[in-house]
Amino acid sequence: MSAIVTLFTGLALFLVRDRDSSHFSLKHGYLFTVACWILLPLYAALPFYWSSQDMTFTDAVFETISGLTTTGATILTGLEHLPPGILLWRALLQWIGGIGIVVMAISIFPVLKTGGMQLFKLESSETAGKIFPRIQDIAIGVFAIYSGLTILCALIYYSEGMGTFDAIVHAMTTLSTGGFSTTDQSFAAFPDKGIIWTGSIFMFLGSVPFSLMLFSMKKRQWSLFFLDSQVQIYAAFVCVVSFICAYLYYENSGAQDFFTALTLATFNVISVITTTGYAFEDYSLWGTFAPVLFFFLTFVGGCSGSTAGGVKMFRFHVLWLSCLQQLRRLIYPNGIFLQKIEGKPLNNELSQSVLIYIFMLIISFAVISTCLSFTGLDFTTALSGAATALSNVGPGLGAIIGPAGNFQSLPDSAKWILDIGMILGRLEYVTIIVLLQPRFWHY
Amino acid sequence: MSAIVTLFTGLALFLVRDRDSSHFSLKHGYLFTVACWILLPLYAALPFYWSSQDMTFTDAVFETISGLTTTGATILTGLEHLPPGILLWRALLQWIGGIGIVVMAISIFPVLKTGGMQLFKLESSETAGKIFPRIQDIAIGVFAIYSGLTILCALIYYSEGMGTFDAIVHAMTTLSTGGFSTTDQSFAAFPDKGIIWTGSIFMFLGSVPFSLMLFSMKKRQWSLFFLDSQVQIYAAFVCVVSFICAYLYYENSGAQDFFTALTLATFNVISVITTTGYAFEDYSLWGTFAPVLFFFLTFVGGCSGSTAGGVKMFRFHVLWLSCLQQLRRLIYPNGIFLQKIEGKPLNNELSQSVLIYIFMLIISFAVISTCLSFTGLDFTTALSGAATALSNVGPGLGAIIGPAGNFQSLPDSAKWILDIGMILGRLEYVTIIVLLQPRFWHY
Repeated sequence: MSAIVTLFTGLALFLVRDRDSSHFSLKHGYLFTVACWILLPLYAALPFYWSSQDMTFTDAVFETISGLTTTGATILTGLEHLPPGILLWRALLQWIGGIGIVVMAISIFPVLKTGGMQLFKLESSETAGKIFPRIQDIAIGVFAIYSGLTILCALIYYSEGMGTFDAIVHAMTTLSTGGFSTTDQSFAAFPDKGIIWTGSIFMFLGSVPFSLMLFSMKKRQWSLFFLDSQVQIYAAFVCVVSFICAYLYYENSGAQDFFTALTLATFNVISVITTTGYAFEDYSLWGTFAPVLFFFLTFVGGCSGSTAGGVKMFRFHVLWLSCLQQLRRLIYPNGIFLQKIEGKPLNNELSQSVLIYIFMLIISFAVISTCLSFTGLDFTTALSGAATALSNVGPGLGAIIGPAGNFQSLPDSAKWILDIGMILGRLEYVTIIVLLQPRFWHY
Repeated sequence: MSAIVTLFTGLALFLVRDRDSSHFSLKHGYLFTVACWILLPLYAALPFYWSSQDMTFTDAVFETISGLTTTGATILTGLEHLPPGILLWRALLQWIGGIGIVVMAISIFPVLKTGGMQLFKLESSETAGKIFPRIQDIAIGVFAIYSGLTILCALIYYSEGMGTFDAIVHAMTTLSTGGFSTTDQSFAAFPDKGIIWTGSIFMFLGSVPFSLMLFSMKKRQWSLFFLDSQVQIYAAFVCVVSFICAYLYYENSGAQDFFTALTLATFNVISVITTTGYAFEDYSLWGTFAPVLFFFLTFVGGCSGSTAGGVKMFRFHVLWLSCLQQLRRLIYPNGIFLQKIEGKPLNNELSQSVLIYIFMLIISFAVISTCLSFTGLDFTTALSGAATALSNVGPGLGAIIGPAGNFQSLPDSAKWILDIGMILGRLEYVTIIVLLQPRFWHY
């Protein structure tokens, strides 16, 4: 039924389309991107809505948006008793959402200059321009890598003892940094150390720049990948935070040995930083430090051009370099300090774009948290709910929506607010907010 | 004893000073400001430390820093049983801290270009330059207004039924937007509507630009004050938020009539926005929206050049205008959009300075919250404690440090972390962080 409705609408739109694509302007780019992310979930929600699970329309749309944006917040409980079709559809939504996000980050965001993404414009890089003549080729290449890694991940999961269906579903939601699972326990149902490390590694791989992977593969120069400043900073950050967490977990909670602590800490840290949101166990039991630390890690995100959400590493790098430049200028008011990022000079336009992104993130976070609190949520739930939606992580903090909880019990109004948050975060604010300007509609 | 020790040190420093002040450079400006704020509290803590109250050194320093930075977080309980000398010393610390902050904001920060304060450089304004030949004159003028308003406030408090001592102490901590009181109940001990509105109005007056007040007074043109963009935005924001709060409070908590709800809501909103931090009653009982809303209001702050802490209105204005400029540029990539703020063109240097301020605020907030959580504080206490210290408000949220609580029970390590937070926030981050650069010490 869902397929028929969707196909019919699609065909109708295909037939009435304007065949002349020459006047596809910047304005259409914004409209197209936003319209896609608002309309797609409505159609993709149909299988949930018409399923045997008696889901309300609100719940069906929430689950779909959470899937397509690779957030991974769920309103379903008793996952192990659900029909495999529903579980597979959830995983597929995340997997397709994931590749959609990567392609959007490579092809659309740099042109729309979304939050500093112009840094990754392919045309400006001459060598890249020769190897990839057109965006379609890159998209196909990235799709191939993404599929290859997913199959590899599923095979390793399977070889380590997961069932076939579980391995396929988890591989799809690992690479897309989505976080939907086949059981309510999430990864706690698979306490094998090998499976946990496999999950950690493939979540990490899902959060590094796919285009850079493709580029290094085509040129057969892996140094390009490993010497990339964003990848280096990201890897270093993940290692340092994981070690600190492992140490504190080992000291406070008495894990059997340090390696077990490191395994669990790394898995949880990577799960939050890559915005996957697999729960392993309730880390709020590790000590008072864990909820606060994980709250801030929610905002970090992976690298640009990956399936991860959040602020992303290159923006922190841009801000950090801008700060250094400013601090130096305070001491030497007439000095000229050139900073380079990703091999390009750090200019004002770039740092301004990142500034606007951060400012909109803060405003969105404040507005969404306050709106959530108006629906009756407590301080921790409202703040962490807003954070987890905007960064597309998945679980929040506290008893209700924490790693051991579920979004089912929230009021409908809160679910719609979180829907808006997930799409805002996924489209990186600017793409949507630009539409709110009256001036946009005039030209 | 305290006076003797302080006088002796002061005399010694006076005698060994360098009489030639001609080589007082930018570098000395930073060093002088930071050294003042680190050394002053140590001497000002002596009366507490040597008092009959058996305060530990940590507690004495915490109370002093909280006073001088006009934060108003206290570790003392049973205030009504304390000797008047201690209560007066607390109020004096805030009153002197308040005027110190105003003079610093007018004279030092614009020269050091702290977080966009160069916008308020007096030299660049020609008319101002003619009326105020030197900074000392402005300082004297501002001091006169500040003292005059304090006396007026004390008289009104007294005429409305406060005791003489209470009126004087509360007037000093109202104008300095400090928030120390003479009773544990804070303003709830004076439930008279007249007193509450007097408090609201004088807290507001303490959070508007004093130099602008002086300037309008000398020119006898009050329109200069009321047409100032920062003052207008600030007043509008306070009114809107107070009305929303009053409405929600009236709906949820069943206050007797709307005017009572408005009185209490306005008092609490102004108390948090101006970073005073008087408690009236525990607003967390108003409904779930209150803690979240007040958490975000903590960061807002008053106007520049006042005794208020926080981000301050003009920074939001600069960010907002930068965002508008950026959004327009996204639609018209080749358009030139000039924005003006405070009658001056909005340039890149200015928005970059504000950017660095916001970035450092976020990093400081994340680091201080996480450090606080390591000392064993829960999520709400750690986050709101960091926010309230950095913005110099006073009370936080939750059972421990909320409006009905006290900082006494926190571990010593948490108190020292909050000390650092209060000074960082008061010196607007940049002034301190510039010292952490190795380059600073080389030139």
